[in-house]
Parts: sequence; structure tokens; C-alpha cells
Amino acid sequence: MPPRVYVTRRFHFSAAHRVYNPAWSEEKNQSVFGPCSGPHFHGHNYELEVTVAGPPNPETGYVVDIRLLKNLIEDQVIAQLDHKNLNLDVPFLQGRIPSSENLIVALWEEIARLLPAGVELVSLRLWETPRNCFTYYGETVEPF
Amino acid sequence: MPPRVYVTRRFHFSAAHRVYNPAWSEEKNQSVFGPCSGPHFHGHNYELEVTVAGPPNPETGYVVDIRLLKNLIEDQVIAQLDHKNLNLDVPFLQGRIPSSENLIVALWEEIARLLPAGVELVSLRLWETPRNCFTYYGETVEPF
Amino acid sequence: MPPRVYVTRRFHFSAAHRVYNPAWSEEKNQSVFGPCSGPHFHGHNYELEVTVAGPPNPETGYVVDIRLLKNLIEDQVIAQLDHKNLNLDVPFLQGRIPSSENLIVALWEEIARLLPAGVELVSLRLWETPRNCFTYYGETVEPF
Amino acid sequence: MPPRVYVTRRFHFSAAHRVYNPAWSEEKNQSVFGPCSGPHFHGHNYELEVTVAGPPNPETGYVVDIRLLKNLIEDQVIAQLDHKNLNLDVPFLQGRIPSSENLIVALWEEIARLLPAGVELVSLRLWETPRNCFTYYGETVEPF
Amino acid sequence: MPPRVYVTRRFHFSAAHRVYNPAWSEEKNQSVFGPCSGPHFHGHNYELEVTVAGPPNPETGYVVDIRLLKNLIEDQVIAQLDHKNLNLDVPFLQGRIPSSENLIVALWEEIARLLPAGVELVSLRLWETPRNCFTYYGETVEPF
Amino acid sequence: MPPRVYVTRRFHFSAAHRVYNPAWSEEKNQSVFGPCSGPHFHGHNYELEVTVAGPPNPETGYVVDIRLLKNLIEDQVIAQLDHKNLNLDVPFLQGRIPSSENLIVALWEEIARLLPAGVELVSLRLWETPRNCFTYYGETVEPF
Repeated sequence: MPPRVYVTRRFHFSAAHRVYNPAWSEEKNQSVFGPCSGPHFHGHNYELEVTVAGPPNPETGYVVDIRLLKNLIEDQVIAQLDHKNLNLDVPFLQGRIPSSENLIVALWEEIARLLPAGVELVSLRLWETPRNCFTYYGETVEPF
Repeated sequence: MPPRVYVTRRFHFSAAHRVYNPAWSEEKNQSVFGPCSGPHFHGHNYELEVTVAGPPNPETGYVVDIRLLKNLIEDQVIAQLDHKNLNLDVPFLQGRIPSSENLIVALWEEIARLLPAGVELVSLRLWETPRNCFTYYGETVEPF
Repeated sequence: MPPRVYVTRRFHFSAAHRVYNPAWSEEKNQSVFGPCSGPHFHGHNYELEVTVAGPPNPETGYVVDIRLLKNLIEDQVIAQLDHKNLNLDVPFLQGRIPSSENLIVALWEEIARLLPAGVELVSLRLWETPRNCFTYYGETVEPF
Repeated sequence: MPPRVYVTRRFHFSAAHRVYNPAWSEEKNQSVFGPCSGPHFHGHNYELEVTVAGPPNPETGYVVDIRLLKNLIEDQVIAQLDHKNLNLDVPFLQGRIPSSENLIVALWEEIARLLPAGVELVSLRLWETPRNCFTYYGETVEPF
Repeated sequence: MPPRVYVTRRFHFSAAHRVYNPAWSEEKNQSVFGPCSGPHFHGHNYELEVTVAGPPNPETGYVVDIRLLKNLIEDQVIAQLDHKNLNLDVPFLQGRIPSSENLIVALWEEIARLLPAGVELVSLRLWETPRNCFTYYGETVEPF
Repeated sequence: MPPRVYVTRRFHFSAAHRVYNPAWSEEKNQSVFGPCSGPHFHGHNYELEVTVAGPPNPETGYVVDIRLLKNLIEDQVIAQLDHKNLNLDVPFLQGRIPSSENLIVALWEEIARLLPAGVELVSLRLWETPRNCFTYYGETVEPF
């Protein structure tokens, strides 16, 4: 039976954000989120790792042509995020607190629907700083 | 159902150790462990990645406030290891050979009991050098 | 019951390759693979992460002596790849298109049979560039 | 004669900015600076390397106690930048376009006056992204 | 007087090469250069750091618009090297042994003549592997 | 006239040390050096960058054969440091406080006398942690 191989491409974007719940007062945002909720925003160089999986095509040796994957995701997704404000400028984040947790779940939806047939989205990993990262495998949990 | 997101924080500590089995002679330690058992110790810049998981809280967008996680683990765990000797100075390593394998299993116990309710410890990854790393998911195996 | 710990060692090799299907014309190779199939080859600094798992031996604290693992794989596997041409020089790649997907599956076979008893091969991860990586867990899929 | 040794400490901060000349119209800013001047800001994980030099003190072996250097610069300088907006929140940047060039020159003035006697500031290097960096040695040029 | 600031942009290319002196026999090449002269080539992920300097323009805060610098060098220089064979495919390397030393000197000539007036080329740094790098400042030495 | 090119090789070693002045009491060492002087040592993964310079040899394209440089310094210098205690085990450090400043000055003497004729030692850079580094160019200063 053919092997299942995982292919990961790393993307980069620079964006501003603040962690801010619009249902709360400015004071409550400051007290809960501290410097992460500064009113004039701060920002990050985000690194995003997209992992897909499938069997290598016997004629090409490729699970997916990584140049196509790169162009697709850069044009359709990264272009919406790079040099933008995650609270104000990104249609697919409207109505969501732009924590990295919420960002990665929203990115899953955006990326999954772009992939060609037969290529499965396996995980997204988002580095917010060199010391903080967030991973999503498309899993759900029992509600709390 | 809410998504399950993994949050990883990376920590750093510098420590001395030697791989040494006190039940063996110095000669046997040298012959089995070689330079890793030099009698005057050597040391490493360890990098520790702590991964927890859970659903993002709808009011904050956070699985856990990563600043709290950082402070908790730095104060309660890293402070016991940084600029210390793993064979001599660390209470929770007493009686254990301080290989990275044993260190990571001991760290699991220390870190798991610190976490707030609802935040699950998923994995620890310890880089001893930029080329050697060790990962633990809390799994057990059949004894050998 | 003893813990199961994962041990990863990172290796490096520099090699030339081109993605090329010998059943196709040169023109078809160019049209499908583009610059990845340049007729005079190109090359990469590959980074290979080998992960094995098992219980730490109570007498040594080691899953495996990582110096032995390093020497075994460098002498038996990396020496066949480093400063070589993956299309022309590597016996275990003969007859395979040297995509990273096919390379990692071939490496699995080479490395698995070298490991000492009781040490399980868990995954291989191959970085072709700092932005592209490939992972294999020894899994298979239903044929397509 | 005593040796002259250079000591470098690396700092990190996350900030928002836009490259914007307030003497110009919004349209001219967009046309000159493009996405770097997006009206809602973007941001970066900046890495700042501070290099000082001098002879090691014979009694300590130190040019400067790097823990003191770290605390001084984190408390007096990095705290003004981290999780802030470089256009709006930083007193020592008021009236300056917050390009990395202007930021590093402003940082030189802030850092030089903090250093203890006998410790010379030699260079600042600022990484705006992993691919763009800016260095300043306190030099001037003939005006253009 | 205006400050002099150094601006560095990092580029990436993947190429094949062999160190080979065509005036020598194949045997002498093997004996002098060893595996670096394998007849079927090997390759690297090269990283190139280009550093220019000058005063920031008071109206933009820029020494040079780094997007222009990036596009210019990628289109005119990197495109000649990426996914190519340095011995066979690169016009500006014809007749030169493609060691990293010779490559960086040839790159100096290519890059210097592209730069806009008022922007001085200061240094090129070429990483052949993560452990080997080569730097050129445009200096000459007395012949030997 | 021939170009002057700089060649850098990066080395790695893991060692234990404490910053300790034997002319002082244990109490004074603790009060001056804090955790850096813990009595049972701590340790680091040191990275050492050795830079030499000269004209490329027209017949080889090399300033120096980097494989020879690597073997020479690993066998003669790194072997004295790796998996050792810098206070107790290293002959060329006897009588010196093993701060990184003093270590790098001592390394200069060890390395300079190993180099073949015509190859000039230009700089040593020692990374003690990913955030602290030390550079020496063989310069002296007026005594203080």
C-alpha cells in the first residue's frame, strides 16, 4: 500500500493586533489582558506552518506540488494578513477576538477549502513569537 | 463543538550534569557513558517546550493566559534548574540519573500538578543541544 | 509501568538532485516540474531528524545511547548521501524519483533495519529548505 | 596591555508601527511606502543586539556584568517599546518616522546614556524580520 | 551631521556545484578537494546577506527602500543562481572555480553595479551551510 | 590585486563552569557573581565562530581548506573543552576566571598558533547562550 507522507510549508507575515473583547469595557480589557490589550495595538512577525498529507503520486514523487501550495496560500490567505491589522483589516476575522488560538482556527477554515482534492489538511502551527506557538489539528472537544 | 487548540511555551535554562550511575564504579561509568560521565561535570543550554491543550475560552480567546503559564513554570520549575547542577542541586531529581530522558519524565510530574483546572498537559520537549531532543507525552509502555 | 520517551537526533547532509521522471520527455519534465527539474541539477543542505522511542533503561537512563545512534546512522546512511548526487550516486535511491517524499520513504527502510532491538523507529522529518519539510511515520494509505 | 573584548546582549520586543510621514497626504504615504504604511498599522517581533566593549576587569573576568546590562536596558528601554505602538506610544520617538533606521539611531541615544563609566557602546543591530536588519555604529556622514 | 546606518537584506537560493579546477586531472581534483569535487556535483541552500549603508533620507526615514533592493537583487542576481548549477549554468561565473570565496567576489561585481546612486555596498556574507560562511568587504590584499 | 575574503567556521562544545575568583571568599563570590557562581557549577552549549582571512588561492579558490581548519581546531582545541569543566579540566585555562571574556582571549592564543602560514586570524565570536555573545579581534586597550 502507498505510504502516507506529510508535507509542511512555512509562511511568514507581519501584522498588528490587540487582544480585546468588545463586549467588555476598556478597563476590563486592560485588567484581564494587560499589555496584550494596549489600545494602540502591538504586532508580531508570525510564522505559519501548514501541514498536508497524502500518498506521493507515483509519476511525480509529490504529495502536492509545493510551489502550487505556496502560491495558493500566499495569494489567498497570507495576502489578507501581511502588513495588516488583525482587529480591523481582515474580513475572515471579523467578530473574533484575534488571539492566536482564534486566528489559527479561522485559518483552518480558510486553508482547508483551498486545497486540491486528495490533499488532506493535517495541522496548522502558528508561531506568534520565537517562544510562543499554537497548533490546531481540526479537533473538537466536549463543550465546557 | 469547541475546537481543541495546543499552546506551546518555550523555556530556557543552563545547567551542569554528568550521566552517572552511583551503583557502578567510576570505571564502569566511564566505560559505559564515556565523555558524558566526566567526573567534573559538563553542561548545556537546555530549551524546554511545554505544550498544553484545551478549548479557547469564548470570552478571552485564550486556552490559557500564556503569561500566567510562563510565570508559573519559571518560578516553580525553571528556577530549580537554571544555573544549577542536575546531579547535586535539584530536589526533584534526587536518586535519578540525570539523563534527558529521566529529566523530562521528572519534569512532567512537576509541571502537571501546577496547571490550572481544565488545562491538560500534552507534551514536553527538551532540547539538550541543537541536535539532540527528547519528547514525552505521559505515555507508558509494557515493562521489559 | 515504565514511561515511553522519544529521542530525536538531527543529521545534516548536502546533496544535488533534480526532480525528473525518466519515463517522460525532457520537455514534459520541464513543464511539470519547472526549475526543480533543471538539467544540470541544483542542491540543498538537508536536515534529517530521526526519532526513536522506548522506555529508558533503568541502569543508564537512556532509551538508546545517542552517540551510538549518531555513529550508526552517519556511517551507514548519511555517508551515502552527503556531497552526493541523489539521482546518480545513491544505490538505495536507484529507480526512484528523488523528491523529498520518496527520499524519506527510502530512508525509513535504510534506518529501520539498523536500529538495535527494542528501539522503535517512530518518525523521520526531512528539511529540504528552512521553509519546506517532509515527515513520515511509516504509515500507509489506501491506494488511489 | 589588556585585551579589548566585545560583549553583545540580545533583546526582544513586539511592537506595532507604520512608516508614515505626517507632512505628506495619506495618498502620498501610500504611494511611497505601500503596505508598510497601512493606516491601521502592522507589527513585528523586533530583536535588538546591543554591543559594548572594554577590557575585562581582572578581578571578575567581566567587561560588564551582563545581568546588570540586561536589567538596565530591559527596564529603561525595552519596557518603553514592548507591546507598544511606535508611532503613538513612545516618548523618545515623538516627531520621528518610525523606520528601523530612525528607531536604531534613537535607541543609540537612549542606551548610550545608561551605560556605566568605562563601558563603550559600539553597535546596535535591529532585526525587523528574520530577513531585514539594521546596524548603527554611532557614525555620521557628510550631509547630502 | 546625518547618521550612517547599515541595512542588511537576507536572500536564499538553492544550487548545485562542485569545486573543480579544469586545468587539473580528475584525479588531482579528487585528491585536493575530496568529496567537495564529486563528479556528479552536490549542492547547498545558500543564504546571502547584502549590506549597504548611507544616511536615512529625512523624508522617508529609509537608507534605501528595502522592497526595491529585494526586488532588484532577486530579479537580477538570485534568479541567475536559484535552482541552477554554479559550474555550468551561471554566465557571470564562467571561468571561475565556484568556491564560496570566488562566488562572493563575483557577486560583489554583480550587485555593486545595480545599486542606486548614494547607496554604498558595504559587505556580502554567504552562508554555504549553517556552519560555514564567507564575507567580503570589497578589500584587496598585496598579491602573494 | 587579489581580493581579501573572510572565512568563518562555527564549532560547538558543551561544558560546565562557574564564575569564581579564588582570591575571594565563597561569600564574596556569591555576592558579586550571584547564580553564575553556584558552587556545583552550571553549564552551556557554547558556539564558537572562528574567522580567518586572506586571498583565495587561484588554483583552488580557497582561502584555506575549511575541512583542514575544521579538523585542526576540533582536534587541538575543541577536544580540550567539549564535555569538560572549564574551571578544573582545561590546561590552557588554569589560573584564569573562566568568564566568556577570558575564555575567548585564551582561545585566541590557542588558535592563532595552529593556523597555517598566510592565514590570518581575524576574530573569534563565542555564544554562551542564544542571547549572550562575546567577540575578540586581538585588540588591546590602554590599561585602566
